[in-house]
Amino acid sequence: MKKSLGAKTLAYPAPVWVVGSYDKDGKANIMTAAWGGVCCSEPPCIYVSLREATATYGNIMARKAFTVSIPPVEFAKQADFTGMVSGRTLDKFAAAGLTAVKSDIVDAPYVKEFPVVIECAVLQTVKLGLHTQFIGRIKDVKTEESCLNADGLPAMDKIRPLVFDTGARRYFSVGEPVGAAFAIGKEIA
Amino acid sequence: MKKSLGAKTLAYPAPVWVVGSYDKDGKANIMTAAWGGVCCSEPPCIYVSLREATATYGNIMARKAFTVSIPPVEFAKQADFTGMVSGRTLDKFAAAGLTAVKSDIVDAPYVKEFPVVIECAVLQTVKLGLHTQFIGRIKDVKTEESCLNADGLPAMDKIRPLVFDTGARRYFSVGEPVGAAFAIGKEIA
Repeated sequence: MKKSLGAKTLAYPAPVWVVGSYDKDGKANIMTAAWGGVCCSEPPCIYVSLREATATYGNIMARKAFTVSIPPVEFAKQADFTGMVSGRTLDKFAAAGLTAVKSDIVDAPYVKEFPVVIECAVLQTVKLGLHTQFIGRIKDVKTEESCLNADGLPAMDKIRPLVFDTGARRYFSVGEPVGAAFAIGKEIA
Repeated sequence: MKKSLGAKTLAYPAPVWVVGSYDKDGKANIMTAAWGGVCCSEPPCIYVSLREATATYGNIMARKAFTVSIPPVEFAKQADFTGMVSGRTLDKFAAAGLTAVKSDIVDAPYVKEFPVVIECAVLQTVKLGLHTQFIGRIKDVKTEESCLNADGLPAMDKIRPLVFDTGARRYFSVGEPVGAAFAIGKEIA
């Protein structure tokens, strides 16, 4: 039996992404966002949705670039921290014990300690209400070599990203492999 | 040491969502999408990005409504199947052994067997390239009562959604809880 819960952002799973940007003085900032995802294959694009109140919003509007660094489970506390405090009054990289690396491709910093980083140039912004979508054209993805599988592709069980529970507001790890996409469904019909 | 992999849609984690729509004759269709996410808190919005070649694209353009039904791990084969075949030539609900329920709020069907369904009216479409974003204003979320926690909120470990590995193209389950959001980061600074 299904219960109606109303018009709420209860969608599963959501990512835990750390968005990197520079402010007007070139100070590196990061903030954590769960409203993000892939939105186009060609050109390859991801988005993050941000509130105008955040420092990151103003930074990306001005610099037209951002990165997404994907924290692994062992950095859950740091990722939670960088989602709670403002970069206006604090050097969040330093406070979280993380290292800012200047991207060689876009005008934004990424987190050295995280295994996957996505470097983006802003393609479009879409103001929706409380949040504005920053749609970024992916310029490069950099991954720790230890997270690549035999085919040279990043493997999620080696990256160990966090998964966000939008309802109960908890972080989870990724669990067991369930099957290969575009393969296990062939048993049907 | 990080390795550059180029401009690819390698972002973790991605969801596995089954998008419901009606065609011009009122036939219920579903397709699986991994390019989706929450994009605004107020008004509450999610999006799915679809290729123009899909039947679902035309359906949603015409009806201005869609649903997202979230398959649990035990329906991984069905979700993979409904991502591989076209609803133009096949009744995918019937072929996958799933039941279409007409939403009482929006002009779209959802999957009875899946534990969470999100009913949306199209707020905006954003053509990006190969994919177009369909941004849906959430009108209601319906959840199986067995997936609610003591606070009446859906709990991800009870829903057991699939998690998509965009690189190695595999489905995973959600793993262990790592900590409470807006809480575990308080240990820092």
